[in-house]
Amino acid sequence: MTAISPPARLAAPHEALGQDELALATRNHGLPLEALRYDITPAGLHYVLIHYDIPDAAADAWRLTVRGRVRNPLSLDLDTLMSLPSATHRVTLECAGNGRALLSPRPVSQPWLLEAVGTAEWTGVPLRTLLAAADVAPDAVEAVFTGADHGLERGVEQDYQRSLPLSVATADGPEVLVAYAMNDAPLPPQHGYPLRLIVPGWYGMAHVKWLRDITLTRTPFTGFQQATAYRYRQTPEAPGEPVTRIAPRALLIPPGFPDFMSRTRVVHPGPVLLEGRAWSGHAPVTRVELSADDAATWRPAQLALPDPAHPWSWRRWHTTWPATPGTHHLTPRATDAEGRTQPTAPPWNRGGFGNNLVQRVTVVCLPG
Amino acid sequence: MTAISPPARLAAPHEALGQDELALATRNHGLPLEALRYDITPAGLHYVLIHYDIPDAAADAWRLTVRGRVRNPLSLDLDTLMSLPSATHRVTLECAGNGRALLSPRPVSQPWLLEAVGTAEWTGVPLRTLLAAADVAPDAVEAVFTGADHGLERGVEQDYQRSLPLSVATADGPEVLVAYAMNDAPLPPQHGYPLRLIVPGWYGMAHVKWLRDITLTRTPFTGFQQATAYRYRQTPEAPGEPVTRIAPRALLIPPGFPDFMSRTRVVHPGPVLLEGRAWSGHAPVTRVELSADDAATWRPAQLALPDPAHPWSWRRWHTTWPATPGTHHLTPRATDAEGRTQPTAPPWNRGGFGNNLVQRVTVVCLPG
Repeated sequence: MTAISPPARLAAPHEALGQDELALATRNHGLPLEALRYDITPAGLHYVLIHYDIPDAAADAWRLTVRGRVRNPLSLDLDTLMSLPSATHRVTLECAGNGRALLSPRPVSQPWLLEAVGTAEWTGVPLRTLLAAADVAPDAVEAVFTGADHGLERGVEQDYQRSLPLSVATADGPEVLVAYAMNDAPLPPQHGYPLRLIVPGWYGMAHVKWLRDITLTRTPFTGFQQATAYRYRQTPEAPGEPVTRIAPRALLIPPGFPDFMSRTRVVHPGPVLLEGRAWSGHAPVTRVELSADDAATWRPAQLALPDPAHPWSWRRWHTTWPATPGTHHLTPRATDAEGRTQPTAPPWNRGGFGNNLVQRVTVVCLPG
Repeated sequence: MTAISPPARLAAPHEALGQDELALATRNHGLPLEALRYDITPAGLHYVLIHYDIPDAAADAWRLTVRGRVRNPLSLDLDTLMSLPSATHRVTLECAGNGRALLSPRPVSQPWLLEAVGTAEWTGVPLRTLLAAADVAPDAVEAVFTGADHGLERGVEQDYQRSLPLSVATADGPEVLVAYAMNDAPLPPQHGYPLRLIVPGWYGMAHVKWLRDITLTRTPFTGFQQATAYRYRQTPEAPGEPVTRIAPRALLIPPGFPDFMSRTRVVHPGPVLLEGRAWSGHAPVTRVELSADDAATWRPAQLALPDPAHPWSWRRWHTTWPATPGTHHLTPRATDAEGRTQPTAPPWNRGGFGNNLVQRVTVVCLPG
């Protein structure tokens, strides 16, 4: 298996992108940054990252089982699940590997620049409703979620699996959902049809797609995606810290119009409206600043008022920039209520996780 | 402008993928090949290639104008357009640049491997209905289609524009559509909302998205996307031949399960069902063959009967492969009714267009 599926590696200094990374980049996709204009990302523009294959899911035969350390094991078909009281939450999701391709040395994996994000309205049954119905035993400490996608990763054959501590799984702020709808329509195949987990505030790896089983355990889960992958570590041997909540980030809708190949932006002299979105999975974003001189000096942007109905959704921000002829580098920066902010040098780790390096948009302002 | 937006270039020998190519690959996306299982590609899995930005289209203010060499110029709002008799066609679309990243030297542009394809049901008003209503003048020879997407490409600032000869624009087999729905829903933003052209059998560059104007001309159109881009040429100076219809191709749904990083497939010994799709924009596909020994020998696969209702849609094919332990390279090959087939060496040209090189799927069969 190791010959087919070797351990994780770092690219050599100046090693360019390989065909394996390209194959992932052409399958998976990010949010085209102009689509930050939509409060709710239309399906098809929302980022997607699929570890193995999209399973061939047949809704009429689908069962969600809840078992392990429970007194009342459940096996629910979709009709039964959808007959339970539901909730809808507007949630910003981001891939933990967003920004990975900007790191040096580059962890060899899905090569995101900074577009692996999206915001949708997810409808489903609160997870704590299902756990209450299953009557979780007092010795349970975690819930382990299993998806139907099957593959090989670094030598380990597996169904995709992740766990949550019971305190997170049963919380009501934010409420974890077993979702069956995205933006008022059934989940698209690439977003987990027919069922997926939604864990507001957490990076994408927690939102298990094609969800088919929830097992309560009395010891913490040590499966591949929990203990091997998705850890912040500096060396391959280190146990590392688990990847959990989303670090703050602001993104700017690139202004003006683009060059096809370089994506360099072109504007005309005069005031240019700059707008974008900002989010954090830890606490509300309370400040967005913009630099028009390549992160040398910063001035505040206007941040939309918090919307109490959507605490886990990104917030709009805007400012006006007086464009003058020449080449400029625009950079937004978000800070949250707990003081977390974005670095101007990338926070390196071996997996390339949680890299919330500030965005840098090159804009050429034409002569007047 | 040339400093921001230089001429097209070829990658140097062994020059690896650049960040400009990666930025296109993370914005645009292909069909994950397991999604070949769907007769009709769900929106969000269908390939998408956007030259500039997705325009911020407001449906209530949208107008489609038909003008130039016509006796009765039209300016239609969406309600009026959608009140006209409509047609729905199931059409396979493929990007003309599909396969480009496999070429050597590699044309520097969107780096597709071979996943830039999809099949949808497109609903709209037949173009010839609109042209009849506009009463085309006898001296008109072409219809020029203008989209709302604006950008810079190789030094030329432009709205995306392409033309069709009047004989193609007014044909009824296939019928060109001004489409407003994809798979029974309004067009998604990335597929041209609110209006796009559908030209069955032609590569994607002809299916102008965000369509806002049709101008009839008495001379052939010589705009950038017609005369500079999308030509088959061997040297930069050559006028080249225009890129038009889709060359035949068969794709295989990769069998078994994948390794995350390499996408190598893993199967167990025994009979393995292989299935896929095949299409040609010139004539019906009449033969699909499969090689299990890296294109050395071929045997016929079973091709689904032609469906007269959907002559411009891909066709399913299947065969059974007796997998034995070891590493194998599987390759399908399509041939159409006019004898066009797929090469086993890539047909090189400077733009990387129409490269219908056969697919090569590496499969490891485990010991029994």
